[in-house]
Amino acid sequence: MINDTMYARGAESSVIREIFTYANERKAQIGAENVFDFSLGNPSVPAPDEVRQSIERSLKLPPEQVHGYTPAPGAPEVRTAVAESLNRRFGTNYTMADVFMTVGAAASVSCTLGAVTCPGDEVIVIAPYFPEYRVWIETAGAVCIEVLADQETFQVDPEAVATAITDRTAAVIIDSPNNPTGAVYTRENLEKLADVLERANAEREVRLGHPQPIVLISDEPYREITYGAEVPWVPSLYEHTVVCYSYSKSLSLPGERVGWVLVPQVSEGARRVMTAVAGTARSLGFVCAPSLFQRVVMDCVDVPSDVAAYARNRDLLTQALSQMGYTYVEPGGAFYLWVRALEPDAEAFCERARAYELLPVPSNSFGVEGWVRVGYCVAPEVIERSLPAWKRLAEDYGL
Amino acid sequence: MINDTMYARGAESSVIREIFTYANERKAQIGAENVFDFSLGNPSVPAPDEVRQSIERSLKLPPEQVHGYTPAPGAPEVRTAVAESLNRRFGTNYTMADVFMTVGAAASVSCTLGAVTCPGDEVIVIAPYFPEYRVWIETAGAVCIEVLADQETFQVDPEAVATAITDRTAAVIIDSPNNPTGAVYTRENLEKLADVLERANAEREVRLGHPQPIVLISDEPYREITYGAEVPWVPSLYEHTVVCYSYSKSLSLPGERVGWVLVPQVSEGARRVMTAVAGTARSLGFVCAPSLFQRVVMDCVDVPSDVAAYARNRDLLTQALSQMGYTYVEPGGAFYLWVRALEPDAEAFCERARAYELLPVPSNSFGVEGWVRVGYCVAPEVIERSLPAWKRLAEDYGL
Repeated sequence: MINDTMYARGAESSVIREIFTYANERKAQIGAENVFDFSLGNPSVPAPDEVRQSIERSLKLPPEQVHGYTPAPGAPEVRTAVAESLNRRFGTNYTMADVFMTVGAAASVSCTLGAVTCPGDEVIVIAPYFPEYRVWIETAGAVCIEVLADQETFQVDPEAVATAITDRTAAVIIDSPNNPTGAVYTRENLEKLADVLERANAEREVRLGHPQPIVLISDEPYREITYGAEVPWVPSLYEHTVVCYSYSKSLSLPGERVGWVLVPQVSEGARRVMTAVAGTARSLGFVCAPSLFQRVVMDCVDVPSDVAAYARNRDLLTQALSQMGYTYVEPGGAFYLWVRALEPDAEAFCERARAYELLPVPSNSFGVEGWVRVGYCVAPEVIERSLPAWKRLAEDYGL
Repeated sequence: MINDTMYARGAESSVIREIFTYANERKAQIGAENVFDFSLGNPSVPAPDEVRQSIERSLKLPPEQVHGYTPAPGAPEVRTAVAESLNRRFGTNYTMADVFMTVGAAASVSCTLGAVTCPGDEVIVIAPYFPEYRVWIETAGAVCIEVLADQETFQVDPEAVATAITDRTAAVIIDSPNNPTGAVYTRENLEKLADVLERANAEREVRLGHPQPIVLISDEPYREITYGAEVPWVPSLYEHTVVCYSYSKSLSLPGERVGWVLVPQVSEGARRVMTAVAGTARSLGFVCAPSLFQRVVMDCVDVPSDVAAYARNRDLLTQALSQMGYTYVEPGGAFYLWVRALEPDAEAFCERARAYELLPVPSNSFGVEGWVRVGYCVAPEVIERSLPAWKRLAEDYGL
């Protein structure tokens, strides 16, 4: 009969969507130029022209060749192109067998979670975290365990992860460059995390005869959106890593739903994980990644992301907010600024910001208190025009 | 830890895929023209030129307008175009609120099943049936109950459905024009089924105070592929119908993954179902239907399907097999011929057919014994060249 959990998840008004709706109403009332909507994560940079060129080339081919089903894991030539691009960048030796094309990063993560958890297992997320992780973890029948990031740097806190690991821990999800904080996890930080996981695996194997290592799910939709920081290749630091990727941000194709799961086929266990990813994709109703955009990925796999516009926005926003006395996490990547709310209650702070037509997202949506997320994937004019409002808001709090 | 159910579903070699692989190997050995692969359901008719024109128009727009996220239920103008097209065809009064755009028919069915079942509920399928129904039913935590179709006409057997209904029956899935049999359920047949469901609803309401009606899931990817038969509009016959649709066959876009769920918003219960469909889509990791192909749907919503090629194949195949003494179900729609195997064991029959390079799919894959599915969505030359082989196979069995 009607499934109450699914009903509740459909009815739940996403805070971000609610802000977006409010912004549009307010724009209609007082003019779009007077409302400063920082709630969204929709890339403001257009898809590169190579995408259009790729589509036009495909339109010259017989349509049944372009629009037909591909095999469930994706077209072999597309998977090979992805593997070879990774090999060029990271000195790896992947082949198409390591790559499973998906219907975007959401599908990458939900298919991976279904594959590597059994009902009752635990999955650790690093708070603040992308709120859909909890939904997908619970859909897999697993339990979402929140572990706070270091609250100064918003790096992973390896010792806090170590403390949270239990005999039921199946996976840890990380997301760097991070949504919502913009932090990029350093190589040193990830090495410490890998150490923690390896120690836990060894300990569990000895004590429980438990052969199953903890899987590190590295969700990387923002890998290409960085401002000079190194984004280490996680499988080179920890063997049992599954990488989830999407072209939503790197090629500005969020609506087209195309990405991949990479499970390096280095062991019998890894081969079983990849087979279970395929089984989960099948079970959830994914048939194949959209075929035309698989071809776009093949053609554009090495097209660089245009981060210059985001970098300019970031500099503009951070310089101004810094002068006004706001504190924030220096964003190494993604297009979010994580700003400390000027009172402990982030929702109250956002209410007060709303009086100045400023619309950031309160940190409660991401599982922590006292901060806001300011998405700067907007036109630079929006940031420029918003600065007096940020200034007045700061003054309001006596800064 | 690794989920054994998901692993098994990934490892399970689909019979159809296995035949396809065998066919390709055999073609390499003896020449493609000598192997008669009737295993597939990939449309052989190319996508209409209007699809290419629509994509070219979209490529002239700013890319962020074309490739950005749409709202989760789909772009409003696309949902409106779908509703209005249905209204023109079926005299209905749908609006965008009744339509949820999906990542193809598989997603339509899996999201509907998640919405209208709770763990332990039962879902009735009409055997022979599309084998993924079982996978999606079980993924939702429900139980798949097989009810045989009438074994002469392959219409629904309403009394058999009535017998199978229990207090846990949440839904019945029908699929007309049918895969695998090609049967199109008549208006009379569907009216009888509606009567059975309404009687069961009334009886359960009185006895259990059970307000929840049985949902009829009408999966209609082949609606447009018919040879003169009427395909009744099921919601006009039974109120609690959810229609699942895809453009895979009608516009020959199977790889692009775009379709919809229609839940007519006629009652509070129906509104709850639609909300739960949205919640299930979110839970499984569907974010929105691919955005460029949503626009294609909007532009091509009334483009007729080119069924002439399938009709010619059907006539060619049925006339020849009939003369040779085969019996089959007269196909009213889809592009499959359901042929009685010439011995009780369909798999043994397929083995023998393989000696003549004929590759149909045994009925066991669809939950029944003694038949084979012959997919005639192939080039007409394949059918023509295969006829001597069908003849020799018949002679082999003494026909």
